[in-house]
Amino acid sequence: MAGDLYLGYRGDDVNTPYGKFFNPEMASLPEHVVEALEHGPQGGMALLAYEDAGSMADEGYQQTENGYGVLEDGSYQVSVRTDMPGVTPSMWSWWFGWHGSDTRRYKLWHPRAHLSAAWKDGDEAGRRGSDRYVGRWSLITEYIGSNRLNGAIQFVAPGQLGCPPDGDDAVAICARLGSSDGPVDVGWFIHHVRSTPEGAEMRSRFWMGGPHIAVRKAPDVASKAVRPIAERVLGNPETNARNLLVHCAQEMNHLAGFLPELYQNFGDE
Amino acid sequence: MAGDLYLGYRGDDVNTPYGKFFNPEMASLPEHVVEALEHGPQGGMALLAYEDAGSMADEGYQQTENGYGVLEDGSYQVSVRTDMPGVTPSMWSWWFGWHGSDTRRYKLWHPRAHLSAAWKDGDEAGRRGSDRYVGRWSLITEYIGSNRLNGAIQFVAPGQLGCPPDGDDAVAICARLGSSDGPVDVGWFIHHVRSTPEGAEMRSRFWMGGPHIAVRKAPDVASKAVRPIAERVLGNPETNARNLLVHCAQEMNHLAGFLPELYQNFGDE
Repeated sequence: MAGDLYLGYRGDDVNTPYGKFFNPEMASLPEHVVEALEHGPQGGMALLAYEDAGSMADEGYQQTENGYGVLEDGSYQVSVRTDMPGVTPSMWSWWFGWHGSDTRRYKLWHPRAHLSAAWKDGDEAGRRGSDRYVGRWSLITEYIGSNRLNGAIQFVAPGQLGCPPDGDDAVAICARLGSSDGPVDVGWFIHHVRSTPEGAEMRSRFWMGGPHIAVRKAPDVASKAVRPIAERVLGNPETNARNLLVHCAQEMNHLAGFLPELYQNFGDE
Repeated sequence: MAGDLYLGYRGDDVNTPYGKFFNPEMASLPEHVVEALEHGPQGGMALLAYEDAGSMADEGYQQTENGYGVLEDGSYQVSVRTDMPGVTPSMWSWWFGWHGSDTRRYKLWHPRAHLSAAWKDGDEAGRRGSDRYVGRWSLITEYIGSNRLNGAIQFVAPGQLGCPPDGDDAVAICARLGSSDGPVDVGWFIHHVRSTPEGAEMRSRFWMGGPHIAVRKAPDVASKAVRPIAERVLGNPETNARNLLVHCAQEMNHLAGFLPELYQNFGDE
């Protein structure tokens, strides 16, 4: 988070081998995302429970592939699908490792919302594939809607959320989501990417707030004291769930549009 | 409300003569509903006043046929139209009597939000047409948006809201809406169904909260003490009005899609 935060590229930012992929214009939302927004919040029982996260690896689709809701425990859940012709699951493993070391890479993903990214450790030596992000902390600053947050994304192995190990046909990018302002975690996410005849589809799931708020590395400590820090990341449940759905749909669709070409050029980095 | 609450059909639920009509997939919202959502809350004077409910029986259309708003007295009003080719008004009279005795029937209507339905009295003997629901209490559990509520729907004769008696060309399904958690009423609704050249159209109106909150059978008791119970049904006015519009549009369009066939098979029950 050192230095000025600003949206998009300035000055010399574009002077990288990948700078030409920065595109400030983002496409319209896919129709299935627009419909999910029209429908608004869903009943908790229509949404995937955190305890069933591992079912993301099952074949077929779930009751709510696109939608969000505020649950009775105060948490909120968000689900959204991204269709990605020409993309493979392994491109996303590469992306999650490759982007995190440089704000200019991170900004390719969501030019209207991403401000800063850095690994908590600076050590890039010898890492490849999912080993490049699993077990590491990505410290990011971004907007979700109008809410600016300083997040700590702690990537975990798929098995921690009940998913099988990554393979050629499917990968599960899983993480604990927290604040980088204090030792507070607030949620979990999975981006499950699997092959389709046209390329791949990403099915994203977020569980935020409520019972997912915990003092980092002290899960039994009461969450009340840390709630103000948590709320800086979580925002207002009723609006942030919606905004998170939009944000995720935007960034995943945007990147998917040039990920194959990006991977072709930099996939061996 | 006895037994486990869950969305959709499980186990033997489908093993009824009408089980084949359960369809978990709901259609997109009609364009006129999407436009109403885009416009968002309307000024109170553009919405039908509760005192003018009887004008639903007039020919033509009103200033707001599709829309919602939060009024200055804290109540909210919701209006929505459902076009129903091949449907007749009397099919709806039959539906409102037929569905209420079995959760599996109730779930046909909104497979993503309906959880439970039972008549407060169990007496079905000799009832036909609107006599099967007018004067009775339907106890239901359902989601409106993410808000799960236990409702008591007390059907009343059309005349109580100023509408003429039902006929072949038009019926008015009218009810006082309350909580089943306590003796608190919170609103009113009309579903006015009239014939069109293509079949029928339903024009729904809800008046919720504000001056419509009352202790049941003690209308002059101050509403303050019962407000927590009322709010469990009402939710947040700003979001629940919108969510109620979506919910009503979804369930009425969904059922209208197979109501003629359902009526053909079970209309004499």
